[in-house]
Amino acid sequence: MTLLLSNDDAHHLLTMPDCMAALEESYRATYEAIAINGRRSDMVGPGGDADSAYVLKMMGAILPQQKVGAIRLNSDLFRWVTRGERKQRIKVPAAPGERWVGLVLLFSTETGEPLAIFPDGVVQRARVGATSGIALDRLARQDATSLAMLGSGWQAEAQILAAASARRLARIRCYSPNAERCREFAARMATQTSVPADAATSPEAAVRGADIVLCATNSLGYVFLEGWCEPGQHLGTIRDRELDPGAIARANCVIVHDRDNLTGQHVELAKGAVFQEKAKELGLDPRTAHLVGAPSLDELVGGAAPGRQRDTDITCFLNYHGVGLQFAAIGALLHRKARAAGAGRDLPTEWFTEDVHS
Amino acid sequence: MTLLLSNDDAHHLLTMPDCMAALEESYRATYEAIAINGRRSDMVGPGGDADSAYVLKMMGAILPQQKVGAIRLNSDLFRWVTRGERKQRIKVPAAPGERWVGLVLLFSTETGEPLAIFPDGVVQRARVGATSGIALDRLARQDATSLAMLGSGWQAEAQILAAASARRLARIRCYSPNAERCREFAARMATQTSVPADAATSPEAAVRGADIVLCATNSLGYVFLEGWCEPGQHLGTIRDRELDPGAIARANCVIVHDRDNLTGQHVELAKGAVFQEKAKELGLDPRTAHLVGAPSLDELVGGAAPGRQRDTDITCFLNYHGVGLQFAAIGALLHRKARAAGAGRDLPTEWFTEDVHS
Repeated sequence: MTLLLSNDDAHHLLTMPDCMAALEESYRATYEAIAINGRRSDMVGPGGDADSAYVLKMMGAILPQQKVGAIRLNSDLFRWVTRGERKQRIKVPAAPGERWVGLVLLFSTETGEPLAIFPDGVVQRARVGATSGIALDRLARQDATSLAMLGSGWQAEAQILAAASARRLARIRCYSPNAERCREFAARMATQTSVPADAATSPEAAVRGADIVLCATNSLGYVFLEGWCEPGQHLGTIRDRELDPGAIARANCVIVHDRDNLTGQHVELAKGAVFQEKAKELGLDPRTAHLVGAPSLDELVGGAAPGRQRDTDITCFLNYHGVGLQFAAIGALLHRKARAAGAGRDLPTEWFTEDVHS
Repeated sequence: MTLLLSNDDAHHLLTMPDCMAALEESYRATYEAIAINGRRSDMVGPGGDADSAYVLKMMGAILPQQKVGAIRLNSDLFRWVTRGERKQRIKVPAAPGERWVGLVLLFSTETGEPLAIFPDGVVQRARVGATSGIALDRLARQDATSLAMLGSGWQAEAQILAAASARRLARIRCYSPNAERCREFAARMATQTSVPADAATSPEAAVRGADIVLCATNSLGYVFLEGWCEPGQHLGTIRDRELDPGAIARANCVIVHDRDNLTGQHVELAKGAVFQEKAKELGLDPRTAHLVGAPSLDELVGGAAPGRQRDTDITCFLNYHGVGLQFAAIGALLHRKARAAGAGRDLPTEWFTEDVHS
C-alpha cells in the first residue's frame, strides 16, 4: 500500500533532533557521492496578469542507505505585492479550499514502488530548519547563548527550534514589522523552547549583541545590514537577499547549502513580458555571484571545508535552494515513523503503478 | 477533484491523430518560447547487485495555451542481461503485483491544483509514436508508401500507427528476432491499420526498398546498418544506438528531438562500481556527439530548420530523450477527454494540497 500522510501526521511524528540526524546522514552521503541529488528545475510561466507567475518546481534524489528515492514538487501561483514599504512575493492559495500545492513522493529503490505521498509543508519547514541547525552546530561559537530571529513566520519557528537543538540558548530576541504578531511569536517560542524570548522594536535592536542571527522573512529587501555585524557572530539566512551582500563579505567563513543552483541555471522562463522581470527575483543577486565557489554544507559535514577558526570569526550559512535529498532523508524518517505509529491512510499501490512499460 | 486515470482510460480515449495534433501545438509553442520544458533529471543509484541499477527520472513542463503544467516521473529497476547474442537492458517489474512505476501529474496553471494523476505507459507510447509521426510527416517523401519496422514490441505498434496517420502506406514489413512474435505483430498491425503487413526473415530483408525505416527495439546493439541506406529513405529511431552512426552520417538531413539532453548531462550517477559502467549506456554514444548541434523538432515544426530538399535525400529523425512538454500536451488532451467521457476516479484534491506553505 502507498501511505498518504498529512501535514498533521508529519507535525506529530517529526522532531527537530531526528530531522537533523537524518539530514546529517544525507549530507555525509552526498559528500561521499553515495547519495545523489538530481538536477532541480524551476519552471516559470505566465500567471494570468502582469504581477503574477505560475511556477512549477521539481527536485529529486536517491538516498541508497535508506533505500529511498524522492521527488518533491510545487505548483504555485506567485503574486508580487507591496506592503507598506516592502516588496513581497506572495504564494497565492489558489487551489480549491484556498490551499497550496506542494507534494513529496517517496519511492523504494528495491521495488520502485511509491511508498508514501505527503504534502511538503511540514517536511519543508523541518528540512530548512534542520539544515540551518546542522550548519549552526558546526559554525556558531560553542558558547553562543543569544539568538536574534528576524522574521516571525512559519519558517522562523523551525529556525529557532533548530538553533535551540544545537546550542544551550539563554535568550531569544525576535523582530518582525508587525509588532503584535512578533510578540505573540516570541511568547509561543518561549513556551516551545523554554528559553526566554522577547520582541525587539527594530531589527537593529534585535541583533545587537546576539551570538547568532537568523533571518527567515519573505521580504525582498535586505533585513540584516553590513553595519550590524559583530565579531564572533554566526549569521544564517534561508533566502537570497535577506543578508546585505556587505554582511556576507564581512564573514570569515561562508558556507552555501548547495552550489549547483546558485547561479539560477535551474530556472527556466517562458516568454512573456512583465512576469519575466519579476521572475528574475527568483535568481541570484549578481553581487553574491562569487559565492558559486564557496564550500557547501556537505563539504562542511564531510570535513573538507573548514568552519570557524577563531572565536572572533564571523561565520555565515546561506541556506538557499532546497535539494531533493532533504526530502528523501526526512521522507524516509517520516515513512518509518508513520508505519510504526499506524498513521496515515493506505491507498492502493496499483493506483500509482502499471502493468505496461515503455 | 483530482482525476485518477488508468492506462485503460488512456488507451480508450486517445487517438494517434489527436495526439499528433496536441504535440504539434506544443512543439510550435516550444519554438516560440511560449511553452517551457524544465531540466530533465535521470538519477542512477545502486540496484542491489552488480548488473542492476535503480533509476529515478523526472521531467516537467508548462504549456500555457492549455493552462497546464505536468511532471512525469519514473522509478525503475533496470537489469542488464544477455539474450542470445544481444545485450539488453530490462526494466524489472519489481513493484507489488509485478508492476512498473511511471506516473504523470497534471496541474492547472490557474489554480496550481493537481488536475489528474495517471500512469505514464499508454501516454508514453502515444507521445513517442506521435512525435515520430510529426517528424515523419515533415521529412519522409510525400509518395512514401512502404514502411519497414524493426522491432515488434509495445513502442513499435505506436510507431506504425503514427506512420500510417502521416502517409498512405501500401506495405508494412516487420522484423524482430523472435519470428513467431514478429508474425503475430505483423498480423495485428495489418488489422489495426488496414495496410498489408508481413514479417521479414532478416532486418536487411525488411528494410530493402522501404521508403521509411523505423526502429523501436530494446537492443543495445545497432539494428540498422550503414550499408542498408537507400536514396530517398526516411529513417527514424527512438533510442540511442539503434541506428549505426554511419547510417546517421549518410543522412542529408538529421533532426534531433531535443538537444538539451543529448550529451547525457541530465544523468547523475551515485558512486558505485559495476552499475556505473552499465549506467554509461544511458548516455550518448560519443560517435554521435556532434549531433548536439543538429536542428531539433521544434525548429522543424516552427519552420527554422529545413527538412527534406530532394526526393533522393536520406532524412533521419532521432527521437531520443523525452521531454516534459509531451506529457503536458497529451495530458491536457487526456484530461479533457476523460472529463467529457466521465472516465476515471475522482480523488479528493485535499489529499494532494495543503493549508500551509513555506
